[in-house]
Amino acid sequence: MMAPNANITGDDLVITSITAKDMRWPTSLGGHGSDAMHTDPDYSCVYVTINTERGVCGNGLTFTLGRGTDIVAMTVKALSYLVQGRNAGEIFLGFGQFWRELTSESQLRWIGPEKGVTHLAVAAIINALWDLWAKLEGKPVWKLLTDMDPELLVSTIDFRYITDVVTPAEAVELLRQNAAGKEQREKELLEVGYPCYTTQVGWIGYTDEYIREKCKEYIAKGFTAFKIKVGRDINSDIKRCKILREEIGWDNKLMVDANQIWDVNEAIEWMVKLAEFKPLWIEEPTSPDDVLGHATISKALSPYGISVATGEMCANRVMFKQFLQADALQFCQIDSARIGGVNEILSVYFMAKKLNVKVVPHAGGVGLCEMVHHLQMWDYTSLSGSKEDRYVEYVDQQHEQFINPVVVENAHYMALTAPGYSTELKPEAIEQFEYPNGSEWQRMFNEGIFKRKE
Amino acid sequence: MMAPNANITGDDLVITSITAKDMRWPTSLGGHGSDAMHTDPDYSCVYVTINTERGVCGNGLTFTLGRGTDIVAMTVKALSYLVQGRNAGEIFLGFGQFWRELTSESQLRWIGPEKGVTHLAVAAIINALWDLWAKLEGKPVWKLLTDMDPELLVSTIDFRYITDVVTPAEAVELLRQNAAGKEQREKELLEVGYPCYTTQVGWIGYTDEYIREKCKEYIAKGFTAFKIKVGRDINSDIKRCKILREEIGWDNKLMVDANQIWDVNEAIEWMVKLAEFKPLWIEEPTSPDDVLGHATISKALSPYGISVATGEMCANRVMFKQFLQADALQFCQIDSARIGGVNEILSVYFMAKKLNVKVVPHAGGVGLCEMVHHLQMWDYTSLSGSKEDRYVEYVDQQHEQFINPVVVENAHYMALTAPGYSTELKPEAIEQFEYPNGSEWQRMFNEGIFKRKE
Repeated sequence: MMAPNANITGDDLVITSITAKDMRWPTSLGGHGSDAMHTDPDYSCVYVTINTERGVCGNGLTFTLGRGTDIVAMTVKALSYLVQGRNAGEIFLGFGQFWRELTSESQLRWIGPEKGVTHLAVAAIINALWDLWAKLEGKPVWKLLTDMDPELLVSTIDFRYITDVVTPAEAVELLRQNAAGKEQREKELLEVGYPCYTTQVGWIGYTDEYIREKCKEYIAKGFTAFKIKVGRDINSDIKRCKILREEIGWDNKLMVDANQIWDVNEAIEWMVKLAEFKPLWIEEPTSPDDVLGHATISKALSPYGISVATGEMCANRVMFKQFLQADALQFCQIDSARIGGVNEILSVYFMAKKLNVKVVPHAGGVGLCEMVHHLQMWDYTSLSGSKEDRYVEYVDQQHEQFINPVVVENAHYMALTAPGYSTELKPEAIEQFEYPNGSEWQRMFNEGIFKRKE
Repeated sequence: MMAPNANITGDDLVITSITAKDMRWPTSLGGHGSDAMHTDPDYSCVYVTINTERGVCGNGLTFTLGRGTDIVAMTVKALSYLVQGRNAGEIFLGFGQFWRELTSESQLRWIGPEKGVTHLAVAAIINALWDLWAKLEGKPVWKLLTDMDPELLVSTIDFRYITDVVTPAEAVELLRQNAAGKEQREKELLEVGYPCYTTQVGWIGYTDEYIREKCKEYIAKGFTAFKIKVGRDINSDIKRCKILREEIGWDNKLMVDANQIWDVNEAIEWMVKLAEFKPLWIEEPTSPDDVLGHATISKALSPYGISVATGEMCANRVMFKQFLQADALQFCQIDSARIGGVNEILSVYFMAKKLNVKVVPHAGGVGLCEMVHHLQMWDYTSLSGSKEDRYVEYVDQQHEQFINPVVVENAHYMALTAPGYSTELKPEAIEQFEYPNGSEWQRMFNEGIFKRKE
């Protein structure tokens, strides 16, 4: 048992209610976020609010693409009986065990386990609990994690299925080994922030002219790393890569992203044709489940200086474990809304540190930038202690919907100081974009701007 | 394009409606189906009915454990817009492409992809379509598949992500190579059936005495292979294995099943302690996602003569591909209700054949025996041509709910001859056990026999 902490102790921390809202934005209308596999995304999220008797609430979310958001929201409701009536402070002091209860519900686990809809629902609940914890402590999540006693932090993780790579004792030791210089790194984050790259220059749906315009805009903002979507057809990809290099030059970094479009051998052949553009990495070359396939691709592309990145649709820590063990990726792209929330993501950071792989988080969507910059900042202050060749993805979308959105200056995420996990939506966002009854949705349906598919 | 076939041609094959029912049976009350991870299953299914203008309907299902069945049913509804109004005959002649449309829905795939809730929903829809196809042709599914032109059969499969192991042309060739002796094998199946093993002797919730009683009962029925659950505690496992060997002797086969309870190293240590009981296989020793972990376990247990079996919770063909590539299993346990229905399961059979691994299907639950015996019989007539060391699991549960249930004689599944996929429920089953409004559920709620958790 950990030392008691007055902020998270008290009978008034009983959870009185948990709600899940289906929130959608009509981003498909502008082609934003489009890629080879997801041609018409409507950036959406399941937005969970956990209320306590003390009156403090936690807000958390998982990102979705429109249709199916209601399915995840329903799953949050199915899990709610495990949350409601529990004391939040007791949850935090036995968080690893609580996480296992949520993910191992004896009947619901059959329709997962720890993947897809059920795990997205867990992520939204868990993220809301971290927001609550951080608000109770009066700190942003990155600072809460940075200040946390190593044993307490490690106790939030369920190590089931990963002890062959890292044990709780080893994780504690990794934190202790990297404690030196922590204050200095924290100070540095508050002053200059953490570097990011942009994906805003090359969605599949963008025209050549718009790509050039966007490149100029982001270069002017100080960006030095740029990602574009590939995989629709090779000639178009060559043209787009050429435009990018013309605009950003050869000192800046170029990354390309196929969003799972290829088979294993196809990925290798295709990327050899793009090698002349010297991409730093190819992202999601094939199925997000294909560890061995990614390992084959990594080995084949290594002579060309092209690394492999993946992770945004990696289902859970067991899949990440294998990607890390098999040298199937050289850049590990955790996602703050997919695997089972902060607790499980921390386990991936520990495995990546142990196996010496760089973490470069996926972000964008709704709230992903807001959440993940906390985690990467903690990694810098407390675990990896390094920013070398590391960036957080940045997409300029939906930030205006949040009360405390991320702030990017000179291509760096600034360290937020407001308590919580930065994912509380503005009341007017909910009023307008809750689906399907929000005022903006009703307007779009009425005016025929948007047609419901179901 | 395939040769036209009058049975599946016609404008009256337009699909007029698709429905999904939440069906549950209160099996948790008797401890049936209980294991180390699933302590209180209520055997359930999402039951899909697809109606056509011709008046012929298809019935298909996916198996669930109670809570969450409604979530999968809702997902079937979300996918229905891709099914309704389509011509079933045209679906069958472009089935591989249709399957990809269902699994790649541009927004819904984000909450999968091809795993968990969304893929279970796909399985139920796809299985209903095969039932419809077989009924239109007037054949049971095993016979439909056996008689099918190799090119047509292979065209039902989406080979995305698996062409590094098997291509469509290779699959056709495998069928041609194994065509000799087909009639003889078909005749044999109709006469003596296909061997099965029983899991009915050792659920975790059963007492020692009940286990002995069940062993005697199944030996008397002619069974020669018996599976028990392990993993709760080692002393209890040793005692249960001892009871089994006392009852079944050493000539009969014993298999043990841990249902994912262990970490990798723990699995090895535990199984070494059970090696004296000479189990044929250890089933699901660890996370169903851990290909590399299973490979490590396989290698470590091989000197003890213990094989590894897994697959009932394997998410999709990409995961099966890796299990097969990595020698992570020696017995491949396809499940008829989990991965995306018949089309995807066929792809696993082809990969297993190519990589020389035996398929021993998982069954039990609701309707799994009914469906999977069709597939294994096709494998025998048309692909592997062998029954050596192969069994289909058999559990005597819920068969009475179906109009054409499986028939087991002398520990063999008999070849059914009624058209379809054998998963049409009796009208009274629906009247009694549709959840929560079926008459039996209402009675159990009213009498306080069963309490709703949500």
